[in-house]
Amino acid sequence: KKTLKIASIPGDGIGKEVMPEGHRVLEKAASRFGFDLQFTDIEWASCDYYQKHGDMMPADWKAQLQSQDAIYFGAVGWPDTVPDHVSLWGSLLKFRREFDQYINLRPARLFEGVPCPLAGRKAGDIDFYIVRENTEGEYTNLGGVMYPGTEREIVIQESVFSRFGTDRVLKYAFELAKSRERKHLTVATKSNGIAISMPWWDSRADAVGQDYPQVKIDKQHIDILTARFVLQPQRFDVVVASNLFGDILSDLGPACTGTIGLAPSANLNPERKFPSLFEPVHGSAPDIYGKGIANPIAMIWSGALMLDFLGQKEAHDAILNAIEQVLKDGPRTGDLGGKATTVELGKAIAGLI
Amino acid sequence: KKTLKIASIPGDGIGKEVMPEGHRVLEKAASRFGFDLQFTDIEWASCDYYQKHGDMMPADWKAQLQSQDAIYFGAVGWPDTVPDHVSLWGSLLKFRREFDQYINLRPARLFEGVPCPLAGRKAGDIDFYIVRENTEGEYTNLGGVMYPGTEREIVIQESVFSRFGTDRVLKYAFELAKSRERKHLTVATKSNGIAISMPWWDSRADAVGQDYPQVKIDKQHIDILTARFVLQPQRFDVVVASNLFGDILSDLGPACTGTIGLAPSANLNPERKFPSLFEPVHGSAPDIYGKGIANPIAMIWSGALMLDFLGQKEAHDAILNAIEQVLKDGPRTGDLGGKATTVELGKAIAGLI
Ligand SMILES: CC(C)[C@H](C(=O)O)[C@@H](O)C(=O)O
Ligand SMILES: CC(C)[C@H](C(=O)O)[C@@H](O)C(=O)O
Repeated sequence: KKTLKIASIPGDGIGKEVMPEGHRVLEKAASRFGFDLQFTDIEWASCDYYQKHGDMMPADWKAQLQSQDAIYFGAVGWPDTVPDHVSLWGSLLKFRREFDQYINLRPARLFEGVPCPLAGRKAGDIDFYIVRENTEGEYTNLGGVMYPGTEREIVIQESVFSRFGTDRVLKYAFELAKSRERKHLTVATKSNGIAISMPWWDSRADAVGQDYPQVKIDKQHIDILTARFVLQPQRFDVVVASNLFGDILSDLGPACTGTIGLAPSANLNPERKFPSLFEPVHGSAPDIYGKGIANPIAMIWSGALMLDFLGQKEAHDAILNAIEQVLKDGPRTGDLGGKATTVELGKAIAGLI
Repeated sequence: KKTLKIASIPGDGIGKEVMPEGHRVLEKAASRFGFDLQFTDIEWASCDYYQKHGDMMPADWKAQLQSQDAIYFGAVGWPDTVPDHVSLWGSLLKFRREFDQYINLRPARLFEGVPCPLAGRKAGDIDFYIVRENTEGEYTNLGGVMYPGTEREIVIQESVFSRFGTDRVLKYAFELAKSRERKHLTVATKSNGIAISMPWWDSRADAVGQDYPQVKIDKQHIDILTARFVLQPQRFDVVVASNLFGDILSDLGPACTGTIGLAPSANLNPERKFPSLFEPVHGSAPDIYGKGIANPIAMIWSGALMLDFLGQKEAHDAILNAIEQVLKDGPRTGDLGGKATTVELGKAIAGLI
């Protein structure tokens, strides 16, 4: 019997509430599909830990996680006690970089039973993937402040794009597009305004695209692209974007399907040289934490993506079917107009597997 | 009788089709409200001009425009003949910078008669302003490529924020928020990912905000902010953002109100040391150019903003009323489901003033 070793890191806020429901559903899928899950529960990578230790993670975090098959991650951030850029650069962004999780994959999909904020759209109309570069680009702490604290203050912030880092995410996106029926790839850019990196990014998309004559490429500036997510969401199939643009699009895409409360994400090291990380897109949600009302679907769906990545496609499909059914027939948590608790939802989904 | 001197630059594509309708309506407003308009028609700042002269503008462009009260601008860009970054950096972006038009002001407003892509929203529900920094930030051509053309290629792109440039746009936004009923200011940020410039930007918002205790500040990361434009547009009053984030939000905001085809923009040098520039948000639209079907409302509304800025508030209000009425009762151009031509729409609006 195959055993999957999973590091389970709830993190902060509602991460701690939705994580047990993720476990519940994954365990159920494991017993149904005949594999074992070995969870290692980890309390670091949280602001609680930071308050006690002055750091988000222990020095040997990498060694502790390296032998795991994957990291199942809740949410990090508790701005009242630790500034966001400290908690995130000290945990999530470190994982992404040091474990070279260079693909951030996020589906945007409209389900039956989820009220769509866009008029006249129904289940099936929106169904695309956002492939985000996850390790470089606009997210850096390079640069600095000149004349700090004076009237003459000037701040330089650098973005860094490598051909290595850019080509591999483009390739992944082209492969994904090629595997899909429509074979359509939207490339997010801003080459008309950001004058060094973005024209170069466009040229890499063209170069990598040479190997994918089957795939139709459509380059779109990020401004009009966000507008089209709202106006013509049916137009998209696979969207590839830099770190920042992908971050924006992968909140906006799910929002167009009703709520970012449902959206999962996969931070992948496709070669499995390092463990990949699976997390809901929503954050720690301090405003609703402690009430047991958070929607666990994004956590559960992230778990399904994790099983898929680890070779358990049937388990993934079964979980996704259960999610679809619960979204359609209930129970529902408050964010979707119902009264069910986090636990009730987890049980309902587990019960359908 | 007061005379306003306006440089009129149609630019490319549908810019050339909507500009005459802008003139028509502004002339009508001028005669009705007792001032004179002196248009200087300019054919440069267009890709046609570039093809003949190898440059977007003549060497003395600044001298030619400096004495004008304002610049009325159509659209620039014709990617088939001139790459976008060449045409835009050679014209529009030059105006913004060299005439220090440091405020880019764009309203997002839902009108009666315009189908809203968001479910269940009606006229009045969406009514906010985006104040975008327009001269620095992420839009630079600073940086470069190391190991160009090789596998090891690395691209650095720098963003530059000055306290001077940041504080003045924040001040403008706080003043605007203070003048409005709700006195609410959303500050777009990404301080959890972009680790140098954005935490600093946040701190400037706090510092400038000290002088505006009446204004409620709400900092939001750009990713979730785009999601909230779709999910809770009624929440916004004034939104202030860096050059790139403002660019994105000011396409997305208008998209949420139905179409970016209606959206106007003002590129302001509030001190009037240099002429300000008024332009529709839509571009040159090569796909529909030449058919006479482009919607001229964004051009006309931009003209109204220009008159307002030049002290003709009554004329602004009359034009806006006429636009509202035409949106409600027709005629309509194709983008709004009608069959009217560009000229018919211009005449209808002029007729209502
Ligand atoms: C054309 C482009 C350079 C420009 C910008 O990004 O500023 C446009 O999108 C705008 O918003 O005015
Ligand atoms: C929390 C933040 C640093 C993170 C990001 O911007 O990448 C989040 O928004 C995400 O999308 O995973």
